[in-house]
Order: sequence, then structure tokens, then C-alpha cells
Amino acid sequence: MTKPRNDTFLRALLRQPTEYTPVWLMRQAGRYLPEYCETRRRAGSFMDLCRNPHLACEVTLQPLARYELDAAILFSDILTVPDAMGLGLYFAEGEGPKFERPLREEWAIRDLEAPDPYGHLRYVLDAVAEIRRALDNAVPLIGFSGSPFTLACYMIEGGASDDYRTIKTMLYDRPDLLHHILEVNTRAVTDYLNAQIESGAQAVMIFDSWGGVLSHRAYREFSLAYMERIVAGLKREHAGARVPSIVFTKGGGQWLEQIAAIGCDAVGLDWTVDIAEARSRVGNKVALQGNMDPMALFASPENVADEATRIVEAYGPGSGHVFNLGHGISQFTPPANVTSLVNAVHEHSRKLRQTAA
Amino acid sequence: MTKPRNDTFLRALLRQPTEYTPVWLMRQAGRYLPEYCETRRRAGSFMDLCRNPHLACEVTLQPLARYELDAAILFSDILTVPDAMGLGLYFAEGEGPKFERPLREEWAIRDLEAPDPYGHLRYVLDAVAEIRRALDNAVPLIGFSGSPFTLACYMIEGGASDDYRTIKTMLYDRPDLLHHILEVNTRAVTDYLNAQIESGAQAVMIFDSWGGVLSHRAYREFSLAYMERIVAGLKREHAGARVPSIVFTKGGGQWLEQIAAIGCDAVGLDWTVDIAEARSRVGNKVALQGNMDPMALFASPENVADEATRIVEAYGPGSGHVFNLGHGISQFTPPANVTSLVNAVHEHSRKLRQTAA
Repeated sequence: MTKPRNDTFLRALLRQPTEYTPVWLMRQAGRYLPEYCETRRRAGSFMDLCRNPHLACEVTLQPLARYELDAAILFSDILTVPDAMGLGLYFAEGEGPKFERPLREEWAIRDLEAPDPYGHLRYVLDAVAEIRRALDNAVPLIGFSGSPFTLACYMIEGGASDDYRTIKTMLYDRPDLLHHILEVNTRAVTDYLNAQIESGAQAVMIFDSWGGVLSHRAYREFSLAYMERIVAGLKREHAGARVPSIVFTKGGGQWLEQIAAIGCDAVGLDWTVDIAEARSRVGNKVALQGNMDPMALFASPENVADEATRIVEAYGPGSGHVFNLGHGISQFTPPANVTSLVNAVHEHSRKLRQTAA
Repeated sequence: MTKPRNDTFLRALLRQPTEYTPVWLMRQAGRYLPEYCETRRRAGSFMDLCRNPHLACEVTLQPLARYELDAAILFSDILTVPDAMGLGLYFAEGEGPKFERPLREEWAIRDLEAPDPYGHLRYVLDAVAEIRRALDNAVPLIGFSGSPFTLACYMIEGGASDDYRTIKTMLYDRPDLLHHILEVNTRAVTDYLNAQIESGAQAVMIFDSWGGVLSHRAYREFSLAYMERIVAGLKREHAGARVPSIVFTKGGGQWLEQIAAIGCDAVGLDWTVDIAEARSRVGNKVALQGNMDPMALFASPENVADEATRIVEAYGPGSGHVFNLGHGISQFTPPANVTSLVNAVHEHSRKLRQTAA
């Protein structure tokens, strides 16, 4: 495989020089795009869309046709892994993901097994391969997975939660059971990400959406420690190219130094973090990805550009910044504002490099 | 007025020596107590309970009858202020607070006025006075209010929100309008807290429940700056006694140094913060209040005691710590576990002082 014609994103993750700051957006293929909604209607359910490599490829490419994004991200869901473990994922209308069989009984926990990614998750790997073919080396493709703790949240609570009472009761009362689940999830996620890499993913990201609900102490023990094991188990190279890894704990701004120390190439930041401070805290250990408030995309195009420019400015000159939002783009975002954001990041970061040079 | 027979809480807030670490719990008078549910049934709606000084006094005292708590907190709601502004507060069953007339139109924003606390909020001040009489100087009484930004969230969104899209659109597009609302809220909250102090509140707390959803930059401009003005406008003494102030931004762990610099006596911490680190970050500028995960109260009584002890240990010897949860106690908490928590804090902190002496 040859390297992408636009490899700015990969170079930024490895803190190599780039001509401008690359940009992609979490959930960039999503409901704010009318063409996505159209494909989704044709597919049937959300999971039908995820399970159809051809349609998953189609929606993955949609935002790239509209915007000058520097990376594509596999269209899939973080809950494909527990679904492949047999928990029965379904989406109740307007309620988000749910599991038919939440994991709570000790016997069920002891029976839990890491799925072979080439078995029940084959459809994801097929999508990765098809997207790579369709991208034809224009930009790199990002693979991803939920973190072991984030997967465990959904597996144990059975869906989204306000207070994470069930998993936290287990955490404080039966930490041995939770550790067992996290061990299995860690093996599953490592195998899953490595299979995505073998199928063509050129960078991988671990989404720790819920690590930020933990106490500082519990975060290290029940989330970060397992992400560290995954990063250590990832293929660092494939087809002659380095495959960078990104770790993103939403709400993890207090713990950046610890996250930056687990061996990943880049750390994702939500919008509560000052990226200038973050850069000085992590030094040149890792690249940083982020961190505009997705709600800033509801301002006028001029104000969107200003906010994006401020973040480019705050990171400052030099490479090592991948521009992104601090969370997934909202389904209500006006699509034209994304153009304003992408252009502002590209133009301003080019200027910044010229001034600094 | 004479000082409370147990003034450990007030001394800890002022970082004066205490024999042990005082403890109270956010939402300590609440649905986890069967006696509260009984009074609530007699009152009718939640707001009927808030508006009846006699019943508000009754539920305020209930947790003190069960547990050796070191402070009482006025039973009320943070949304009494916008309700007195005429927005029409109501509670939809199972949905949390809502406003009949959310604040979105420019003319309505320009018409907004700070209410006279001795007018539509008289019932709160009557409750404060009645609770003080009933407490008979056993322990101090805490008054409170929502922060200007947190009130604005509910006022503009019209209720709880997942993404704060409406207020953030205003923040990024019409900051002048949001600043106007925050100005009015700041005057309202200052007057309201001072009236609570005049009516007998011996310490006051500002709950910034939603400041943590802001970007670091927006937090300073739209939340912290206004809390600073409130703190500067508070009566520092009443009836010959210092009235300490506590500022709590949930999710504000990254900004502790800035919060500690606004002139308040104590800073509240949620459970994501390491209290040992927090202490070294704020030095001896302020006392700290917190910070156990409310979900840790679902463990066994022994594990509850262990978790509480760890936090007392982490703060370490010396005064300046008020033990609390990092958020309101859950309605599902087993009441017996609170006994375990209170006893562990008192016993372990006494021992710690003896060892250090």
C-alpha cells in the first residue's frame, strides 16, 4: 500500500512538520448531512447501516465530498464489540443504544468471551477494506473502538445512564467482577483494532466516552490502565507505515499527563481544556487532537471561523495539532458552518506557519 | 445571636483548627429518607413544600435527627429566583424543572428584572428564620443559590438540557444578550443571598451546577466572573460573626486555582478531583469541600467507610476540609450507609489529628 496523497493528518499525529493543521470531525458522517439521512433511510435501521459494508462506505465518504477534510473515519458504532459478545444490541427510537441482556450476574460475567473479530465482526473489517478501496489513497482512514470501561458502562447499565449506578456499585463493591469484564474487553478491543489495522485502518482511536464520570483514582484503575494495555498490544506498523493511535477520554482534562504517558501518539481534548495549557503540560510527548465546543457550530459562519481560529492560535506554531471538535458534531448543525470551520483552520494555520518561519 | 454549639463546620471553612473534619451532604434532606417522602406527600407538590416555611423547616431538620451532621442546609430549590422573575417554574413528573416562559426573545431579556428578595421570595427568608429558631444554635445553617450562569441555563433552555444548544448559540452569537441576563442574575443572587444572611443563614454556597459544560474561556467570562462579583457583594459579617462563602462548580476541577482566587472562603470539589492535589494547588487560600462519589454510597457499609476514610487521608492533617459528596446524594441511597459515612469521617479525622499532634 502506498501512503495517502494527503497524509497531513498522519504526520501531525506523529508530530512531523505539516504545511497546515489537518482537520476532521468526530461523527463527521452523521445526521446533520441530508445525504446521510437519505442513505440511512435506504438502509433501514442504524445497525443495518453499520452492518452493510457498501452503505457504511457510502456514508463514510459523504463528508469528504462536501468538505476538505484531512481524514476519513470508519462509519460504525462503539457497541459492535459487546453486540458480537452476544448481549443483543438494539436501538430504541429516541432513546439511544440498549442491550437486551445487560451483564450483571456473576455467572454471565464469568462466561464472557472476547469475540474473534474475523467472526461476528467481519462486516466491520469488510467495511474498512471497501472504504480503503473507495478512498483510493486520497486521505487516511481512521479505525476506532470504545474503551474497555466505556463498553462496560453500556454492557452493565444496559444502555445510557444518568448516574452509572449499576457499574459503580459493582466498582465499589465487587471490583473483582468489574476487572474481569475489563480484562475481556481489553483483549476484545486489542484484537478488534488490530484486525481493523490489518484490513486497512491507517490510524486508530480509542473513545473513552465515560471515563470522565469516574473518580481520579477509579479512572486510573478501571479505565486508563486498560487503555494502556491496549496501546501496548496494538500493531505499530502495517504495510510499511506507522499506525498512530489516539486516546480520547471525554472529561479527562485533569488527567492529561497520565493519559499522555500510556504510549499513545495523540491525546484527544474536549472543549473544557485550554489547548495552550494542555500543550505545555504534555510537552512533546504526544500530539493533541481537538477541541472546539460542537455548540460553537451554531453561531454565524464568521463567529464559527473566529472560534476555530482562536484554537489554532492557542495551540500555536509548530506541528502536532489535529483540529477537531471536543465531542461528536450535533445532528442539528447547519452544514454550511462546517465549511467555514474547515476553511478557517486550513487558512489560518498556513498563515501561522508562514509568520513563524 | 450566639454562635452554634457545634461550629466545627464554620471553623473549617475559615481554616481554623477543628477537633475533627465536619461533614454534611448536598441534598441531605431528600428522597432517600422515608420521612422526607412522607412530608412531601403531605405538602403536595415539590414547590408547595419549598413555599411552606413550616414544612421546609421540618424536612431541613430530618437528616440531623438521623445523623451527626455538622451543618443544616436550607431546604429550597435553585430555581426560586427565576421563578420570582416571572418565568413560571413547574415540575413535570419525572422530567425535572421546567419554565413555562423560557427567556429567548430580545424584548423579554431587556425586560428582565432582579426580584426584591423580600417580595416574591419572602417564603424562603421565612423558612430561613424558622429553621434558625428550630435549630436553636445546635449547628450552623447554610443558605444557597444557583450561580448566574446555571440559572441562565434553565431560564434560556426552559429546563434541563443534553447539549445546552440554545444558551450556547446565544453565547457564541449574541454574547451581549447573555451578558445582560447574567448581570441581572448577579444582582438578583447577591440580593437573595444577603437577604438569607440577614434572615439567619450562617454560611452561603453558590451552586454552579452547569459551569463545567463551558469551554475554559467561556467559563471565565460567563460564569466565574459573575460569581466573583457576587462574592464581592456578599455581607461578610452578620450579627458579629463571619459568614463564610463556598463556591462549587461541578466539573470545574481544571479551574481550581482561578476559582480559589475570586475571594470565596471555600471551594467545592466533585469526585473527579484528587483532593490531595487540589490542596496543594490552592495552598492555604481557601478551604475545600467534598468530594466522595455519591455512587460510592451504594457499596457495603464497610466499603463506604473505607472510601470516606481514603478521602479524609488524602486531604491529610490540619483543618480546612469540610467533608461532603461531589454531588447531591442519590434518591436511591440506603439510609444506613450515611451513618457509616458520617461515623467514618468523624472517627478517622479525630485519629488523624491525634497522630499528627
